[in-house]
Amino acid sequence: MSDTVHIVEVGPRDGLQNEKTPISVADRITFVEALIAAGLKAVEVGAFVSPKAIPQMVGSADVLRGVSHHTECELPVLVPNEKGYEASQAAGAKLIAVFAAASEGFSRANINCSIEESIERFRPVLARAKADGVRVRGYISTVLGCPYEGEIKPQAVVDVAKVLWDLGCYEISLGDTIGVGTPVKARQLLRAVAGHVPMANLAMHFHDTYGQALANLYAGMEEGCRVIDSAAGGLGGCPYAPGATGNVATEDVVYMLEGMGIATGVDMAKLVAATNVVSGLIGRLPVSRVAAALNAKKAAGKA
Amino acid sequence: MSDTVHIVEVGPRDGLQNEKTPISVADRITFVEALIAAGLKAVEVGAFVSPKAIPQMVGSADVLRGVSHHTECELPVLVPNEKGYEASQAAGAKLIAVFAAASEGFSRANINCSIEESIERFRPVLARAKADGVRVRGYISTVLGCPYEGEIKPQAVVDVAKVLWDLGCYEISLGDTIGVGTPVKARQLLRAVAGHVPMANLAMHFHDTYGQALANLYAGMEEGCRVIDSAAGGLGGCPYAPGATGNVATEDVVYMLEGMGIATGVDMAKLVAATNVVSGLIGRLPVSRVAAALNAKKAAGKA
Repeated sequence: MSDTVHIVEVGPRDGLQNEKTPISVADRITFVEALIAAGLKAVEVGAFVSPKAIPQMVGSADVLRGVSHHTECELPVLVPNEKGYEASQAAGAKLIAVFAAASEGFSRANINCSIEESIERFRPVLARAKADGVRVRGYISTVLGCPYEGEIKPQAVVDVAKVLWDLGCYEISLGDTIGVGTPVKARQLLRAVAGHVPMANLAMHFHDTYGQALANLYAGMEEGCRVIDSAAGGLGGCPYAPGATGNVATEDVVYMLEGMGIATGVDMAKLVAATNVVSGLIGRLPVSRVAAALNAKKAAGKA
Repeated sequence: MSDTVHIVEVGPRDGLQNEKTPISVADRITFVEALIAAGLKAVEVGAFVSPKAIPQMVGSADVLRGVSHHTECELPVLVPNEKGYEASQAAGAKLIAVFAAASEGFSRANINCSIEESIERFRPVLARAKADGVRVRGYISTVLGCPYEGEIKPQAVVDVAKVLWDLGCYEISLGDTIGVGTPVKARQLLRAVAGHVPMANLAMHFHDTYGQALANLYAGMEEGCRVIDSAAGGLGGCPYAPGATGNVATEDVVYMLEGMGIATGVDMAKLVAATNVVSGLIGRLPVSRVAAALNAKKAAGKA
């Protein structure tokens, strides 16, 4: 597997929006800058959502404007509806992400509508994005399990993926939102979805709640998937089990890829430094095993 | 992969010997009992080593005697030399483990002799064990990297594995002592060693210091390996990076295996309960992602 993998860093959005402590716009810009300086080529910088619903994402327009001179880096932002789309365009977003669920129960609980209704909301966003030349990434959550419905059948994911693909998303990111997936199921899911959307246009967005993320990513890579979403330091946590782990850590992913001979272009020391700054701001240690090990080695004077 | 996997629980030995806080014999017996009650079929209960070198293992004879009525469970103990062997036999050990390194630098630092000298020490132990009808497991440490020598070539591991196998070890446990391995290297190593020792007689003993253990185990299972060493709660830590993670957590391994359709016979709730008791005694939270998630869910009233 000595080919390339595209890492989409989601720490400043999916990570921070699930942290209790809100981070200022200036600190979020510093964080994104540090991630780009570490060599990441895609960084999700914010979300154009209701500040009441997600106060952590307030000022996403300013974060995007603050880093948009980094034209070498993809800078997606999450957009839930037309209002959000307009705000994203006013801030100059060239790449947006929409968000659907594979589980009706999760869709209702999370965005208070059915899957079909959520897609109806995206439809005009996708049409306008197409007309504006804006690329759209489609997230599907709860692809390997739902906190309300339990196991999710691959066909349910396929159904949503087909719709998002047909509506013009250039990439479908498959989210194991609660981290319950295991390697064989991850492979089976990817194989099922790749029957309708090219594997090259699928991304793995696996949470590490049960420690399975790297194994699932490796299994997915064997299946041919080459795009991985991750968050520096494993930022984010799990809203369904406060105290548990959320996004897989970018450090842990980079470590695995580099060990497999896949060059990521990421400078590990710079990445851990970026993580440590945010850890200080949110007041908890990184859950990334690699960050913890490298910090421990450094503290012991061995790095 | 709907076949079987044999888990060797090493928490009471490899785990506790690397924890700062020594645990009393009575508490270690309680811990082993709890692990057996959770369904584990092999539990390494102690080490017959110098109490000066490893005070955490003082009283291993009493621990073994205290649990040896569990004839349904394999109860290996670590034995470094003939003196240790004699003590293990006085305590009734039916299964012992010897310990060599794949790296000269690690062998010197850890047991103060060359690899060849360490094997000369084991030779009489293995001869006596054979005569006594005692089964011997052989550990090889630093198989995927050494804190002193860096990367370790598979051939160095093959050389030691061949000797241990020829001396009569029934199983060779390949230890990624500092957790630096990644999936492709883990597979390559297993393939190399399996050229000389049957795959059925190889075990994977992978530490999770850099979060890679489950991915490596999955990769090794694809290669055909079916024996996994792990420690409840991820007990143990890493002596070369204090504050980092040691043994892969049994909970995380069981979660992956069960998710892959491989029945382990382990009751997860009972396993986490066993982990939590020891966590309380050593005064730190389990590093197992599964234990953390399940404890968090329980605390949130969702489990």
